Amino acid sequence: MDLKWTKKDLLSLYDLSRDEILCILNTAEEFKKVSQRNVKKVPALRGRTVVNLFVEPSTRTRVSFELAEQRLSADIINMNADASSFRKGETLLDTLYNIQALQADIIVIRHSATGAPNFLARSLDMGIVNAGDGAHSHPTQALLDIFTIREKKGHVEGLNVVIVGDILHSRVARSNMWGLLKLGANVTFAGPATLVPREFEQLGVRVCHDLKEAVANADVINMLRIQMERQESGFFPSVGEYSKFFGINQDMMRYIKPDALIMHPGPINRGVELDSFVADGPQSVILEQVTNGLAIRMAVLYLVAGCLK
Amino acid sequence: MDLKWTKKDLLSLYDLSRDEILCILNTAEEFKKVSQRNVKKVPALRGRTVVNLFVEPSTRTRVSFELAEQRLSADIINMNADASSFRKGETLLDTLYNIQALQADIIVIRHSATGAPNFLARSLDMGIVNAGDGAHSHPTQALLDIFTIREKKGHVEGLNVVIVGDILHSRVARSNMWGLLKLGANVTFAGPATLVPREFEQLGVRVCHDLKEAVANADVINMLRIQMERQESGFFPSVGEYSKFFGINQDMMRYIKPDALIMHPGPINRGVELDSFVADGPQSVILEQVTNGLAIRMAVLYLVAGCLK
Amino acid sequence: MDLKWTKKDLLSLYDLSRDEILCILNTAEEFKKVSQRNVKKVPALRGRTVVNLFVEPSTRTRVSFELAEQRLSADIINMNADASSFRKGETLLDTLYNIQALQADIIVIRHSATGAPNFLARSLDMGIVNAGDGAHSHPTQALLDIFTIREKKGHVEGLNVVIVGDILHSRVARSNMWGLLKLGANVTFAGPATLVPREFEQLGVRVCHDLKEAVANADVINMLRIQMERQESGFFPSVGEYSKFFGINQDMMRYIKPDALIMHPGPINRGVELDSFVADGPQSVILEQVTNGLAIRMAVLYLVAGCLK
Repeated sequence: MDLKWTKKDLLSLYDLSRDEILCILNTAEEFKKVSQRNVKKVPALRGRTVVNLFVEPSTRTRVSFELAEQRLSADIINMNADASSFRKGETLLDTLYNIQALQADIIVIRHSATGAPNFLARSLDMGIVNAGDGAHSHPTQALLDIFTIREKKGHVEGLNVVIVGDILHSRVARSNMWGLLKLGANVTFAGPATLVPREFEQLGVRVCHDLKEAVANADVINMLRIQMERQESGFFPSVGEYSKFFGINQDMMRYIKPDALIMHPGPINRGVELDSFVADGPQSVILEQVTNGLAIRMAVLYLVAGCLK
Repeated sequence: MDLKWTKKDLLSLYDLSRDEILCILNTAEEFKKVSQRNVKKVPALRGRTVVNLFVEPSTRTRVSFELAEQRLSADIINMNADASSFRKGETLLDTLYNIQALQADIIVIRHSATGAPNFLARSLDMGIVNAGDGAHSHPTQALLDIFTIREKKGHVEGLNVVIVGDILHSRVARSNMWGLLKLGANVTFAGPATLVPREFEQLGVRVCHDLKEAVANADVINMLRIQMERQESGFFPSVGEYSKFFGINQDMMRYIKPDALIMHPGPINRGVELDSFVADGPQSVILEQVTNGLAIRMAVLYLVAGCLK
Repeated sequence: MDLKWTKKDLLSLYDLSRDEILCILNTAEEFKKVSQRNVKKVPALRGRTVVNLFVEPSTRTRVSFELAEQRLSADIINMNADASSFRKGETLLDTLYNIQALQADIIVIRHSATGAPNFLARSLDMGIVNAGDGAHSHPTQALLDIFTIREKKGHVEGLNVVIVGDILHSRVARSNMWGLLKLGANVTFAGPATLVPREFEQLGVRVCHDLKEAVANADVINMLRIQMERQESGFFPSVGEYSKFFGINQDMMRYIKPDALIMHPGPINRGVELDSFVADGPQSVILEQVTNGLAIRMAVLYLVAGCLK
């Protein structure tokens, strides 16, 4: 593959070509080897500054990015949601101009507002890496999911990938969909009709409201995390009922192919989306997803850094 | 300039001679070049420990210091206001003795109590850098303001510098005044009479309660940030009225010399102290102030570290 | 001493042999010299990742560990009690599996649940260092106390060590007891009967409810910090009364040998456990304890890291 990466930002898989996605996956393969060494560092970003700006909290994603930055030898600044400047009413753009004036190189941003990273990327010279914006996009999560699928199955094209849960509010589902379709997989969205409206079919995916039917021929089953607060908003009647119809337990495994991968972005609601029997079972690749996330984030930061100024 | 820096602390511009101020400015000029390189680091503080103790929160100043420390290759510990030891009722001095026993080298401290850094500097062998104490002093902010003025105007002596806003409660105004007067500038304080009492004249500055009159001959206009909570205390009737009489908008720019610098310590209340037209206009040097702050803080930490033990 | 350290975890002094305790103390002696250099770093943990997971807050212990990690050149991740993953209801073990999947090497954990570190150590390949669990164990605190005693007195065997205060709820007291008894010291627990039940005698210590009697022949007096909230639970009638009977003031010093060491794990409630006259007096080694804590933690991390995989 001879593609040269040319983007200073990673905003969404929707924006990327098939070759660009493959470029990230292949680069991540190289970085995965680094994390298996005893000294897990390379000097690729030495003297560069990365700011982690998490306006919406997320320990897991923040830690994964921070470790990726450390292993690239970057200087790191962590800024959190309730940081004082925001309390003082400063605009997000003023904060970012300020960070840019401090000669930071890359911002890793998580924000509850859809499109915030895109808006910032147009206004700033720094590299912007989207760590999740609203219900819109979470590209590094989708890339690590696709990396894990490719690593385990050897390819992505032609695979039947089923994504189960609250598709309506899920940036993980949307990002996976864009990436998987570009790489030639067949994508099914499964879940209750309130959370998986039929309209998604217009984007090129199959919509299915029965879990047994959805997983029957699946090569990969990606279980989304249920947000408990959705229950209060009436999207599903109870956690118990959701789990009964759309969770995977030992019994449901009889309807699933023995070589199908079970995935979950974490953290798992044990007994809701997955029984422990399944979450910790032989078909689960959930912890491999975590390990691969580090390699994906190292690759993204490395590629983006190469396109600055 | 042959002055050798000899102080283990930076407490206030009031304590510094003209030559000491120039020594910091000249050292900062050298460090500004470091931040423009691709690898923005020097090993000057390698193996030294700097503790950022922010008993009063401030994301901007803390991040600026932390970046300065990273670029000097220091080891860094961040301790915040609501840290557990303080909740347990330990005295500030005990906390600092404890940090000193851990062989930290420099403390960067922000504290709401006027004089806290001076008290600590007398009691401890570590270097103390004042990052703002009460309404008293904020020396690195004033140094970066003066650095920016000197860089843009070529000199400070003889310039007319107007500082506008809540002078009464502003450590930024006091610190600028001391530094600017020592370097031979003419200083005007402007704002409503409740916030700019006539008594300041005894310190050698001009006091002016009319903005048009104040800015008429100004070379530099430094707009202080309004604290919204002052309004509740009755220091001014409303934000709208404050802005009308003491904010700078496009119309007011007609009374300002076209080569006058517009400054602000940030974060800006857009539409209050400054219109966006002015804040983002050609006379604004607000983002340069941010960039220069990093160089000033690197210089201060470097000079102080050279005088320990 | 030829003992080779073979444990991937440090959980409790109860688990360690006399020789293993001596191995840590001797290693710490070497590391203490490192912290006295100008460049206070060694590359022993370069490229290794240490995660500080403080589910119960503690600024002092966290900072001491973080400095130890920096001086060993480790990569460091700080995760705090109120971190978002915990708010989302994830189990502790899932969080730790996740951290392990990110190829972290060592977890430093403080947790309010007794036995949490032991449970984790059995389930994980990472090294687990106990930074305090419930009322059970705080091994690095006890090791730094014993290190300080040995450094000042030249030996531990045969010394009379009195530990004063809320023994019932103190992991510091238990950990000191196990370590001191293994090294041949005589241990006395002193305090009100509600906080120092007679049952402790079965563990091989002397129990004493009169402070003058307890300290009469003491070589070392270790004063525990009083938790003010115990008063509300009725364990002692008032802070004033506690202090009168079990605090050490200038007057009480007349009953104490002039070469006895006064210790305290910090932070001190001045005027409760100790008068400032005593806390800052010539027999106090409280700040030496802090300094030695850094050396002990460097030693523990270094030894544990040598036994991974």
